[in-house]
Amino acid sequence: MKNIIIYLVIFSFIFSPGVGAQEENLAVIQSIYDNALSTDFAYKQLERLCKEAPGRLIGSPNSFKAVELMKEYLTEIGADTVFLQSFTSPAWIFNSASLSMIVDGKQVPLKVDALGPCGSTSKQGVSAEIIEVMSLDEVRELGKEKIEGKIVFYNRPMNTTYFNVFKAYSEAVDQRYWGPSLAQEYGALGSITRSANPNMDDFPHTGSCRMEGNKIPAVAISTNDAEKLSKALKSNPRLKVKIRVDAEDITTQSYNLIADLKGSEKPNEFIIVAGHLDAWHNTEGAHDDGVGCLQSTEVLRLFKEVGLNNKRSIRVILYMDEELYQSGGNAYVAYSKEQQVINYFAIESDAGGFSPRFFSVDAPDRILEKIKKYESFLKPYGIEEITAGGSGVDIGPMKELGVPLSGYRTDWQRYFDMHHSANDTFDQIHFREMQLGSGAMASLVYLIDTYNLADQE
Amino acid sequence: MKNIIIYLVIFSFIFSPGVGAQEENLAVIQSIYDNALSTDFAYKQLERLCKEAPGRLIGSPNSFKAVELMKEYLTEIGADTVFLQSFTSPAWIFNSASLSMIVDGKQVPLKVDALGPCGSTSKQGVSAEIIEVMSLDEVRELGKEKIEGKIVFYNRPMNTTYFNVFKAYSEAVDQRYWGPSLAQEYGALGSITRSANPNMDDFPHTGSCRMEGNKIPAVAISTNDAEKLSKALKSNPRLKVKIRVDAEDITTQSYNLIADLKGSEKPNEFIIVAGHLDAWHNTEGAHDDGVGCLQSTEVLRLFKEVGLNNKRSIRVILYMDEELYQSGGNAYVAYSKEQQVINYFAIESDAGGFSPRFFSVDAPDRILEKIKKYESFLKPYGIEEITAGGSGVDIGPMKELGVPLSGYRTDWQRYFDMHHSANDTFDQIHFREMQLGSGAMASLVYLIDTYNLADQE
Repeated sequence: MKNIIIYLVIFSFIFSPGVGAQEENLAVIQSIYDNALSTDFAYKQLERLCKEAPGRLIGSPNSFKAVELMKEYLTEIGADTVFLQSFTSPAWIFNSASLSMIVDGKQVPLKVDALGPCGSTSKQGVSAEIIEVMSLDEVRELGKEKIEGKIVFYNRPMNTTYFNVFKAYSEAVDQRYWGPSLAQEYGALGSITRSANPNMDDFPHTGSCRMEGNKIPAVAISTNDAEKLSKALKSNPRLKVKIRVDAEDITTQSYNLIADLKGSEKPNEFIIVAGHLDAWHNTEGAHDDGVGCLQSTEVLRLFKEVGLNNKRSIRVILYMDEELYQSGGNAYVAYSKEQQVINYFAIESDAGGFSPRFFSVDAPDRILEKIKKYESFLKPYGIEEITAGGSGVDIGPMKELGVPLSGYRTDWQRYFDMHHSANDTFDQIHFREMQLGSGAMASLVYLIDTYNLADQE
Repeated sequence: MKNIIIYLVIFSFIFSPGVGAQEENLAVIQSIYDNALSTDFAYKQLERLCKEAPGRLIGSPNSFKAVELMKEYLTEIGADTVFLQSFTSPAWIFNSASLSMIVDGKQVPLKVDALGPCGSTSKQGVSAEIIEVMSLDEVRELGKEKIEGKIVFYNRPMNTTYFNVFKAYSEAVDQRYWGPSLAQEYGALGSITRSANPNMDDFPHTGSCRMEGNKIPAVAISTNDAEKLSKALKSNPRLKVKIRVDAEDITTQSYNLIADLKGSEKPNEFIIVAGHLDAWHNTEGAHDDGVGCLQSTEVLRLFKEVGLNNKRSIRVILYMDEELYQSGGNAYVAYSKEQQVINYFAIESDAGGFSPRFFSVDAPDRILEKIKKYESFLKPYGIEEITAGGSGVDIGPMKELGVPLSGYRTDWQRYFDMHHSANDTFDQIHFREMQLGSGAMASLVYLIDTYNLADQE
């Protein structure tokens, strides 16, 4: 098979994509998917990453272990260069968190997890009455008088009637992201946020909050226990809870893990394929974003294995710190400026390893139009559309460098069932669905590398 | 909400779908999805059907129980008429099946399940050498001399490199459907078929085979045990196995369960929404096809609940016997002829309860073109296309009556993981994915009922 592919690739270098090239592209893309759907290197490595290095937030022991595990793997699958791009970053090390209702003098524990990077309490924790609200505005309206000395409980559920669960998430998540700092501003002693989870279950979903100064403790509570707490509060408006968080803010050295497959014609131009290696302290980080990391390494492996002879260098970046401070994404941009790296195109997979649905492109219209022409090659493999839209949190900062960006998008119905929770485990990954993503990304990269993005090239 | 909807519906009766109607349609469709995604009647009833009446092949005790359960439910959700359409059919009652390798005089059991309607053995079963083949043609080439007195073992795996798993299934399934009768024709004493399962696991996947005359026993073997058997055979080409099947062929009275929601203008014209109630003896039949039944009942419930005021009657048909003899589908056509029923349009859901992808339409081009115009209303809810294609096994026979047919199609990557196996359980159903199907079917039916299929109407 390899020889045929090499022949076809050479052929398509010579001719621009006419009718003949269409058939050749289909053959090349088929060979990519044939390999992706029949080899389980990446799937097995994802299992290793999830099981041996869960909870890999920047600065944590498992974040370093994850880098080591993946560095070794990238060497094994045949990257020409593998290196660590080092940077210094703030980090937040989680130790423990708890929340209990105090009912008849007894503590009734609730299922919670700390939001990062919230503040810590003493070992005894903080006890106070709670005040339930449905929005940030409600806190503002209640004012300092009603909030001070209390623990604010944000309990607005996700809107589950949207088809687009990301829209529902974006509408609910202000309670988690801004809620704690707003509560702090109004003198609250702590903050509890209902998990951004469309289902009723027992998994707290953590995530980031924006906090500064003398930080108060902040937790996410499972949806079931949010209902329980709300009900208890209705029968006893003076209900007290005890919140306890043990975590620390540190400064750490950390790394983006970078691996290159050298280009045959323009080795100094890089096509970036990326995911993020960090994952919250409470999770294996299978869908978010172990799978994106392994789909990215698959692009490199598939190019090598199928013999696609890339003109430009394929650069896999497994970013550190998407979740907390986005240090890795910013550090790579700084590095690119410093080293004058030519980043030709970048694509990130960070929307879960479900069935493929579309690619979004964040680039000038004429480039979007060019990439959109590849839809017909990808449609037989479940990519229904290439459309304008965001890319990924890690590659996003490259926009200031003028790099055309893209995000790989999947069927999202199950994504928030597990997002940032202990439910995001390897066994939720479906081999075929994951590998269809690897194939889609490799195919898009192949088309872009072969036909170029600018017309004059 | 109801009043607004009624107003909008009346409004859209008066005007054909122009710009104003577009907005009204979007509002109506949104109200359908709002309800579908926030009510769990159907989901809970599906659980009941799966748990209380698994293994509901035609003629089995649970097939009758399933009819009763669903009849009660259809009455509860407000159907105007619920009735049983009776017919007589052959049936095949499964009792037990086993297969063992005889190694050093000991029996090593393998995971198998009987194919329906295969033959039975004596209690002692049949012992014989096995002959492994990869195709029907190989049996023909080997001829009677090599096959007679043996047990044929069809062991060609599914091609897992296709995006379209239904294509892979259709290429593999000749071994199950025609394999046993071909083996019988060449004098084999039994037939073993590798399960049509893209994964390596321990679940045998059963299914139908076409058999007549003095039927031999025929089983499906799990993919793991197919490999085990093949390996054992390689190390001992004279390996014997013992096959045992206990089942019986009977004639039974059975029923399609039919429920109508009376139309306001043309009550004698019926829009059919359908799934099949029967399921193999080894399974809860959640994806195949409990979910299709409940999505069909949801169309009726949503029309009533949202107040859509259907012009034509909505007819839910929960067919019996899709799996074995397709008696229900044929019986409804006979009934339609006899009673001169006007079936205006029919849609079936029998491709699993996963995320929506498309509708296929089996109708003359001008009707397809008309239905295709509704794509834009359904695209925001994940229907990427309305395209020419098959409909469903149960409604298929209505084609001879000239009825335009449609099939609801989902993301199929996981479908054959569980198809016809003990793995097809209620816990594999995702609430949102299921209900997006209910919403899609109700919305399509709403558009067809509102704007009609023929231009002159």
